[in-house]
Amino acid sequence: MSMRTQYCGLTTEALLGQTVSLCGWVHRRRDHGGVIFIDLRDREGLVQIVCDPDQVDVFKNAEAVRNEFCLRITGLVRSRPEGTINNNLNSGKIEVLAQELEVLNPSVTPPFQLDDDNLSETTRLTHRVLDLRRPQMQNNLRLRYKVTMEVRKYLDGLGFIDIETPMLTKSTPEGARDYLVPSRVNSGQFFALPQSPQLFKQLLMVSNFDRYYQIVKCFRDEDLRADRQPEFTQIDCETSFLSEQEIRDMFEDMIRLVFKNALGVDLPNPFPVMEYAHAMALYGSDKPDMRVKMEFTDLTEVMKDVDFKVFSGAANMENGRVVGLRVPGGGAMPRSEIDAYTQFVAIYGARGLAYIKVNEKAQGRDGLQSPIVKNLHDAALTKILEQTGAQDGDLIFFGADKAKVVNDAIGALRVKIGHSEFGKKAGLFEDTWRPLWVIDFPMFEHDEESGRWNACHHPFTAPKDGHEDYLETDPGKCIAKAYDMVLNGWELGGGSIRIHKADVQSKVFRALNIGAEEAQLKFGFLLDALQYGAPPHGGLAFGLDRIVTMMAGAESIRDVIAFPKTQRAQCLLTQAPSEVDEKQLKELHIRLRLPEAKVVS
Amino acid sequence: MSMRTQYCGLTTEALLGQTVSLCGWVHRRRDHGGVIFIDLRDREGLVQIVCDPDQVDVFKNAEAVRNEFCLRITGLVRSRPEGTINNNLNSGKIEVLAQELEVLNPSVTPPFQLDDDNLSETTRLTHRVLDLRRPQMQNNLRLRYKVTMEVRKYLDGLGFIDIETPMLTKSTPEGARDYLVPSRVNSGQFFALPQSPQLFKQLLMVSNFDRYYQIVKCFRDEDLRADRQPEFTQIDCETSFLSEQEIRDMFEDMIRLVFKNALGVDLPNPFPVMEYAHAMALYGSDKPDMRVKMEFTDLTEVMKDVDFKVFSGAANMENGRVVGLRVPGGGAMPRSEIDAYTQFVAIYGARGLAYIKVNEKAQGRDGLQSPIVKNLHDAALTKILEQTGAQDGDLIFFGADKAKVVNDAIGALRVKIGHSEFGKKAGLFEDTWRPLWVIDFPMFEHDEESGRWNACHHPFTAPKDGHEDYLETDPGKCIAKAYDMVLNGWELGGGSIRIHKADVQSKVFRALNIGAEEAQLKFGFLLDALQYGAPPHGGLAFGLDRIVTMMAGAESIRDVIAFPKTQRAQCLLTQAPSEVDEKQLKELHIRLRLPEAKVVS
Repeated sequence: MSMRTQYCGLTTEALLGQTVSLCGWVHRRRDHGGVIFIDLRDREGLVQIVCDPDQVDVFKNAEAVRNEFCLRITGLVRSRPEGTINNNLNSGKIEVLAQELEVLNPSVTPPFQLDDDNLSETTRLTHRVLDLRRPQMQNNLRLRYKVTMEVRKYLDGLGFIDIETPMLTKSTPEGARDYLVPSRVNSGQFFALPQSPQLFKQLLMVSNFDRYYQIVKCFRDEDLRADRQPEFTQIDCETSFLSEQEIRDMFEDMIRLVFKNALGVDLPNPFPVMEYAHAMALYGSDKPDMRVKMEFTDLTEVMKDVDFKVFSGAANMENGRVVGLRVPGGGAMPRSEIDAYTQFVAIYGARGLAYIKVNEKAQGRDGLQSPIVKNLHDAALTKILEQTGAQDGDLIFFGADKAKVVNDAIGALRVKIGHSEFGKKAGLFEDTWRPLWVIDFPMFEHDEESGRWNACHHPFTAPKDGHEDYLETDPGKCIAKAYDMVLNGWELGGGSIRIHKADVQSKVFRALNIGAEEAQLKFGFLLDALQYGAPPHGGLAFGLDRIVTMMAGAESIRDVIAFPKTQRAQCLLTQAPSEVDEKQLKELHIRLRLPEAKVVS
Repeated sequence: MSMRTQYCGLTTEALLGQTVSLCGWVHRRRDHGGVIFIDLRDREGLVQIVCDPDQVDVFKNAEAVRNEFCLRITGLVRSRPEGTINNNLNSGKIEVLAQELEVLNPSVTPPFQLDDDNLSETTRLTHRVLDLRRPQMQNNLRLRYKVTMEVRKYLDGLGFIDIETPMLTKSTPEGARDYLVPSRVNSGQFFALPQSPQLFKQLLMVSNFDRYYQIVKCFRDEDLRADRQPEFTQIDCETSFLSEQEIRDMFEDMIRLVFKNALGVDLPNPFPVMEYAHAMALYGSDKPDMRVKMEFTDLTEVMKDVDFKVFSGAANMENGRVVGLRVPGGGAMPRSEIDAYTQFVAIYGARGLAYIKVNEKAQGRDGLQSPIVKNLHDAALTKILEQTGAQDGDLIFFGADKAKVVNDAIGALRVKIGHSEFGKKAGLFEDTWRPLWVIDFPMFEHDEESGRWNACHHPFTAPKDGHEDYLETDPGKCIAKAYDMVLNGWELGGGSIRIHKADVQSKVFRALNIGAEEAQLKFGFLLDALQYGAPPHGGLAFGLDRIVTMMAGAESIRDVIAFPKTQRAQCLLTQAPSEVDEKQLKELHIRLRLPEAKVVS
């Protein structure tokens, strides 16, 4: 005997006249004309239960139930009376006349209404078990599952094999900060939780597994931002004997399929492909939000000889850049909004935000409204108008500084304006899915502080064919076989063709100022593996949390993770992390190192 | 242009006359009659490449290649000459006449031959990347993948949802030892890596997810035995609103399907079901190896009044037990083998191993050969022969001690004899798959040292209907709704119906001597969740590593894990764990606690 014959939310008119058993939670209970109606909820949805006073026991039990009681009901499926049909529900044409009502478990009064949309995150995470009962969270986690299952089916069809890599692995203090795990057996030594299975998946290619994937937890002990968690999930993939193009095509198809099957959305086919240099030139970002219909106009050359020192100074600076951002219709923007944007770009290090309103081009200089026009000579003004394509009624914002500051500030401004009420009204934002590939990343970026080159992607990325010599002669010129998939301003995933020859790998380590001894100590097992006929290989990793967040239209990745941590890396539900016994520390050969005097609060 | 047109191992006569491109590793190279033959290997198998001296460049390259070089070959598929067909290979009817041969990556000489079956585990784990190229390891990991994919498909079809639970969670120092992770942000506090997602999966049931599963890494910092790893993988499942029987049926079907689809093996349908008490009585084990055709005969009553103190003492002892193990045909066992078994049972605490050889029953006492017969009266001897069903030529071993010692020792002896050369010849072992369910476990076992009751399964297991009162009156009598799936003497998985009412959970904590305050501190979030209409729920977890080890016929779970740890919990490939920087420790608010004087070795 089963407790239930089907789900509440799937009880439909197909079962009319049948006796069913249902299990679920009291979503709402109301008395109406001497009859008690219960909306009974399970994961598939609601069904209306009718408790008639004729059924004495049922009615008595029904009077006692409250919201979130867990019930088992047996009853007859019958049509709802004319006029009470609810087309928003699967079960909206029927109701169940209860013949038995068993309270499987009562509930104390919940700390909040499940349909309250204004709960603080602290409340939600503290009472996560109830929060997860909310339809939105149910949908988010089911969507997450659907995404992973679509990924698995797709990769299975292509011969990818899910292979588990270790969680207790070696600390390599480069990149982000590791989570460490003290070893009990090997005193004074530590495991690290993996930041990614990067090296293991490469080793699996050397081991002839040919196609690997894993949907796997990764860990970074970094200060948390809105879209970061200490533990996050990657769809991690690697293949042998495929070109960059073949890998991109394969995973572009995968993402298209996932969006289609899990969300019913058709993404463009093919995705546009954009070079990194192009993306930086036009959008100041390697993950441009292509929904925003504005582009940079590079004015560095134009500004070299203007009187306005902010512009000419930046234009003549090493690594300096001057750009204009034409905002069509922006002339209508009130001063207060421009002021707000000036404060906004300051976050990114911009020391001001010059602009020109184009009132009437035909009037030349007099048709332009701006505090800076007087410091720009006619030729410059002409070129600005020409090159930005500005029309009457437009506004042009300017960025002038080190290229990094300009790109960050004006890139963010572009997105901000695009997403603003103004931007949406002015047609500067297209509310759709705009994926693209960004390719041809530089191998290295120069760290001005240390004077050293850092890997843009990671030190195992292969240089483009013909660029190998730059590793020694001019690292800044060296382009990598790296690629990122970008959607609406978010990096969904990224990867590269890897170095499969030990000598090239050594050259890259040298370019990164990692000496032979250090390389051997940290990456000896990789260098060793590359010597045994390592195949050409490459792959990529997608951020599952981000993909699902975007697909669900959620505000935070915490809304697509069952039990997330707060921004202070705490679990409010279980109170982790917590203090542990001295005995446990002793066994692990560690002791606490706390400030000697602790102030009692 | 793709590097290859298909896999080496899948190049068959269907492609005769076509030009193919193949990538793979030199498995063997031999010169024969002025022609060079290369067996090229990829993950799908071997194909024979023919390098003819007519193709000058190809031949020159082929002369230079050595084992494990990674090659790309383009050539013509042609029939092998009469008499050289190899029916052991998929590609055995054809060969590829090379027209191009590119060395993608050379290889230094491997430290061992891939087909050497006598490598030490240290060698294999140190050179794991090459070890994984061996066909056996390739097969094992592909089988592992196939098992997980079959599980996922089956559970998906039943509406189970894969939901990820945290890896950084709360330490609850009960059960096994936790792996701890120091928190940087919350100084002096620690996360624990999960020993299982037990509580989270129960919370997900309270959250109305209805059916959950996860194939998930779990962690136990225990001293390692042959079948243990610091990190291991569970197929973890939980459902709401199902009975014990329904859950068992559901997962029995799953395992049958997995064996059928991944291994082509038909397991019995249905699995036999055995009560725990019955299993202990007949086999001295809660995971009896049913391939072994021998059972215990309980002789406790029979031995109460014999002169032989070893027997009568045990028979009259509290928790004492005397059993006989009849070994059909065991009379032929040489003394040396009996002596070896005596040493063997000593491992399990047995202080001796009495036996009787039944030479000729008809002769009564004189037909029995044994040092102990003189101390057993006639009635006892008659009952021994009667109750064991011993025949002429049999041997009966005896165990007499505390029940635990008898069960462990004679239970192990039963398996040992069954698996021995003797046992196989004597028909005491059936080489097949013999799964069963063991059910009706006790809720608690008594710890004689502490005088306390411990949970047999875990503290969240529900007592059998009608046994709730025993929680307070007689914990030893309380039977749990717990079940284990056993196969050939290994526990494949186990689970239980969980407690879904807060008051019952509190009673169990009390029975376990966990006070209200301690329960609140450690499990407050569970007790809290149970108050909000927690549904009846239950589930189970399978040990993936073990299942695959059995299916693969592997000797150790390390043979079905890509990158396992040694018994000293080390990774010989990457040298994890390792020492870390002082800076890292400082950030984590810990310091080392090492013996002050370290002896330099």
